[in-house]
Amino acid sequence: MKLAVIYDSVTGNTKKAAEWIAEGMEGAGAEAKIFSLEEIDKEYISEAKGVVIGCPSYAASMTPKMREWLMGAGKLGMAGKLGGAFSTVQYTHGGGELVIQSILTIEMCMGMLCYSGGSSKGAPVIHIGPIGVNDNVEKHNGLEHYMDYFKVFGKRFAEKAIELFER
Amino acid sequence: MKLAVIYDSVTGNTKKAAEWIAEGMEGAGAEAKIFSLEEIDKEYISEAKGVVIGCPSYAASMTPKMREWLMGAGKLGMAGKLGGAFSTVQYTHGGGELVIQSILTIEMCMGMLCYSGGSSKGAPVIHIGPIGVNDNVEKHNGLEHYMDYFKVFGKRFAEKAIELFER
Amino acid sequence: MKLAVIYDSVTGNTKKAAEWIAEGMEGAGAEAKIFSLEEIDKEYISEAKGVVIGCPSYAASMTPKMREWLMGAGKLGMAGKLGGAFSTVQYTHGGGELVIQSILTIEMCMGMLCYSGGSSKGAPVIHIGPIGVNDNVEKHNGLEHYMDYFKVFGKRFAEKAIELFER
Amino acid sequence: MKLAVIYDSVTGNTKKAAEWIAEGMEGAGAEAKIFSLEEIDKEYISEAKGVVIGCPSYAASMTPKMREWLMGAGKLGMAGKLGGAFSTVQYTHGGGELVIQSILTIEMCMGMLCYSGGSSKGAPVIHIGPIGVNDNVEKHNGLEHYMDYFKVFGKRFAEKAIELFER
Repeated sequence: MKLAVIYDSVTGNTKKAAEWIAEGMEGAGAEAKIFSLEEIDKEYISEAKGVVIGCPSYAASMTPKMREWLMGAGKLGMAGKLGGAFSTVQYTHGGGELVIQSILTIEMCMGMLCYSGGSSKGAPVIHIGPIGVNDNVEKHNGLEHYMDYFKVFGKRFAEKAIELFER
Repeated sequence: MKLAVIYDSVTGNTKKAAEWIAEGMEGAGAEAKIFSLEEIDKEYISEAKGVVIGCPSYAASMTPKMREWLMGAGKLGMAGKLGGAFSTVQYTHGGGELVIQSILTIEMCMGMLCYSGGSSKGAPVIHIGPIGVNDNVEKHNGLEHYMDYFKVFGKRFAEKAIELFER
Repeated sequence: MKLAVIYDSVTGNTKKAAEWIAEGMEGAGAEAKIFSLEEIDKEYISEAKGVVIGCPSYAASMTPKMREWLMGAGKLGMAGKLGGAFSTVQYTHGGGELVIQSILTIEMCMGMLCYSGGSSKGAPVIHIGPIGVNDNVEKHNGLEHYMDYFKVFGKRFAEKAIELFER
Repeated sequence: MKLAVIYDSVTGNTKKAAEWIAEGMEGAGAEAKIFSLEEIDKEYISEAKGVVIGCPSYAASMTPKMREWLMGAGKLGMAGKLGGAFSTVQYTHGGGELVIQSILTIEMCMGMLCYSGGSSKGAPVIHIGPIGVNDNVEKHNGLEHYMDYFKVFGKRFAEKAIELFER
């Protein structure tokens, strides 16, 4: 079972979150690779049964680079794959959920099956996707505080992909 | 393969759309039942592999009755089911997509797999879900114009549910 | 200059946030009153030049009680008033921005002028509205950490209302 | 009273909608100019009291070009201006409201006052902004059917700007 995490990272925080999600996926027994937008292995993606996509929030919106990349993502054969989304923000109110919702919207337009696990797996509850708050602005936070959310999300996402596609 | 369409209808238009979706589902070989919020068969829902939920738009938002009902919907065992959403509006700009997006958001929080088919099945393209414009305000429209969207959406939704869960 | 904060609070956290916003408004020289949905002073609201509305997030959505109340809010003469929104959540990824966005959507449908100040007033940047994370789940957080955001938002909102309507 | 409409148009439909909005603005006694993203008169924009921004929907999202442009739009002095948004789509369910909502979100992050008039001005009701459906896909529609919405929106937007800023 191949799974992928595709990210746009500006400061390295979103890449770190992508790595945590991949770790969680591997913990569920899947093969997981992460790709920045510049270095996507199209063959791997075409074989992957699930793809999680994420980027930081700028003005409560996805990055222009992610928006541009998503225009052509349908051609990579996303239809029918399990889809997830994540984000990193500078502030708790920084728009992470709006970014996730906008990525999920495009995933649905590409025919993906969007999944987060939600509250169905108990604590920690994930709503529509995991968000981490960077530590450079909100001093009481720090991306590491959110590590578990990303790992748990990755694990649950992989378990669902295995359940759906490995029978 | 049991599938359900759950709707809140005020004037009868949304019920009509629910019926069209169910017709499309049956065209794909599934068993499909529609339920208003007041008459839900909990046993049928618990056995259904996919549930599509819809309501009219009021102030570009779901109806209060639908919001109230969705608070307890998780208890019906929605987690893991295929989830879809639809809406009817008085105006083209009347908020149907915002209603669909808000229903999908709650579906994801309940652990559902959200699916519309998007553009992956060719024309007619469905984005995040089908919308019909009622004919009492925009005279050049009329809900019947949107019948095919609802039927096609129901058919594609059922085909995906069969593909995922009837192997 | 009369301003109001209208809230739905379940545990008391959202009421606390409402009080902080009102404190910020008063710091800018405005008269500010807070009202739960049950005890709204309609005459005061009709005289208020700005209204900020908030509630906790349940399943990344506004509470059913808030949705119900907003159905009739237009009758209180909201059109033309300055409008803002806020939320409190159990988790950073708990849907606060989605709640704010859904409240702002209805405010716009009522003809309000939606305003948060955004990034235009420097640090702390407010995006579409302030959010506080309750301290019962994320132990590294705590609503008090977010007090300044709510106060700053209230102050900026009041300054804009004074600038627009007290000339 | 200077007002501006800024648009990204791919087929010419969104430009046509921008022109209709500007006509409506002029009907209210304002000076109105429209600008494509490539030919923006920065001096005019800095003097304008209100700016309406729109683009077509691709995958229920704003165009990449519009997303890119909005990254730097704050530098044009948008804070404090009246802000509005519009969209054109190929399908009724094509994501126009999601595009409008995402533009309004960035406008709020820039400190603008977002306004559509909503239902407060009677028929035709505008929700969060006007949308036109192009005539190349939905044969029963046609952008001209939506002309009045765009003109009415422009008129109401201009009247509000005059009321707020010309006292």
